[in-house]
Amino acid sequence: MTVELYRLTSPVFVHNLKNLSAVMKIALKSARDRDIDPQVLLNSRLAPDMFPLVRQVQIMTDNAKGCCSRLTGIEAPVFADGDDTFAQLQQRITSTIRFIKGLKRSQFAASADDSIEMKVPIGTLYFSAQDYVNGWVLPNFYFHFTTAYNILRHNGVEVGKADFLGLVPGMSATGKIVKMMGLPQPKKNTIKKIGKKLRRKEKNEN
Amino acid sequence: MTVELYRLTSPVFVHNLKNLSAVMKIALKSARDRDIDPQVLLNSRLAPDMFPLVRQVQIMTDNAKGCCSRLTGIEAPVFADGDDTFAQLQQRITSTIRFIKGLKRSQFAASADDSIEMKVPIGTLYFSAQDYVNGWVLPNFYFHFTTAYNILRHNGVEVGKADFLGLVPGMSATGKIVKMMGLPQPKKNTIKKIGKKLRRKEKNEN
Repeated sequence: MTVELYRLTSPVFVHNLKNLSAVMKIALKSARDRDIDPQVLLNSRLAPDMFPLVRQVQIMTDNAKGCCSRLTGIEAPVFADGDDTFAQLQQRITSTIRFIKGLKRSQFAASADDSIEMKVPIGTLYFSAQDYVNGWVLPNFYFHFTTAYNILRHNGVEVGKADFLGLVPGMSATGKIVKMMGLPQPKKNTIKKIGKKLRRKEKNEN
Repeated sequence: MTVELYRLTSPVFVHNLKNLSAVMKIALKSARDRDIDPQVLLNSRLAPDMFPLVRQVQIMTDNAKGCCSRLTGIEAPVFADGDDTFAQLQQRITSTIRFIKGLKRSQFAASADDSIEMKVPIGTLYFSAQDYVNGWVLPNFYFHFTTAYNILRHNGVEVGKADFLGLVPGMSATGKIVKMMGLPQPKKNTIKKIGKKLRRKEKNEN
């Protein structure tokens, strides 16, 4: 019934940062194939007062490393916000993944009720660790990933929802979708377990 | 160190659906103020092969009720996808919130390792409840909220990140940001507790 804060953050960040890296590789290839200066994509925005692609990627890596740093008490690497080529952004994503993977599960010592303190330019924010992850980190992290993806879609880059979601950890399937998405089939006892649960449920309802 | 699946889903959905509702109210007002047919906004897309605003809102409500239904075993209300005015979408958001709020914490009986089965048009997907929430539900839920928000921003609707995040549950603050965002100040023992933790950490490092 319960999930560790580690499980909600570290592997989720690594999975999505890998997806971001794959999406950004497709974007660079698309720019080259269409003879577009890669900087045009990196500086694209959905509205004049929204951040461009380059900042969406930077902020997403900062969200991830900042969260892992606060939950473990381990200082995160500092990246200069001058990273502004596709190659530099890939390096930034790789460094973020390396920092997160270097933190052991046991180092995520913050309890759900522990206080998290976050300095921003005009003050300091306080949350419980749980509220920080649920109400601040995850919405922001996915916001910037989705916006990066939307900027690329809006600019004609051929990425799809499957690139955004990646190969969902632990997901298996039956039916036509197995071949289409290259998914594993479920272990036999997965289906048996579900069948048993459903039967039990039906019995309870009678 | 651990968080219930309930805590990761039910209140998170309610909070974000309320934010979505507020954002959609601003959008309707913006259309009226600028003499734009509201259907123009509802049918706007960021790319020709992406879903328009109306579908983003519909899918987001479906993500939320589908997840709560699977974690509790309680059937979710069915909404017709003909809901296609601002008023109908607000009604759909309200009905989704009502369904989710009607489920008690104790009804979220799925354990993190329980199997979740999800039928899609071309097969069936299987995950552990934890992988389902982390790798499927939350990325999809935030994807559709962010895309709805981005469609509105792209169409000149004056919403901001603060509307997207809402008043983050449990967040308090010190500094200029308190007045700016109408935030509560932290209880005294929050700061004391953090100070104590930090001192303990510094001591350990020496």
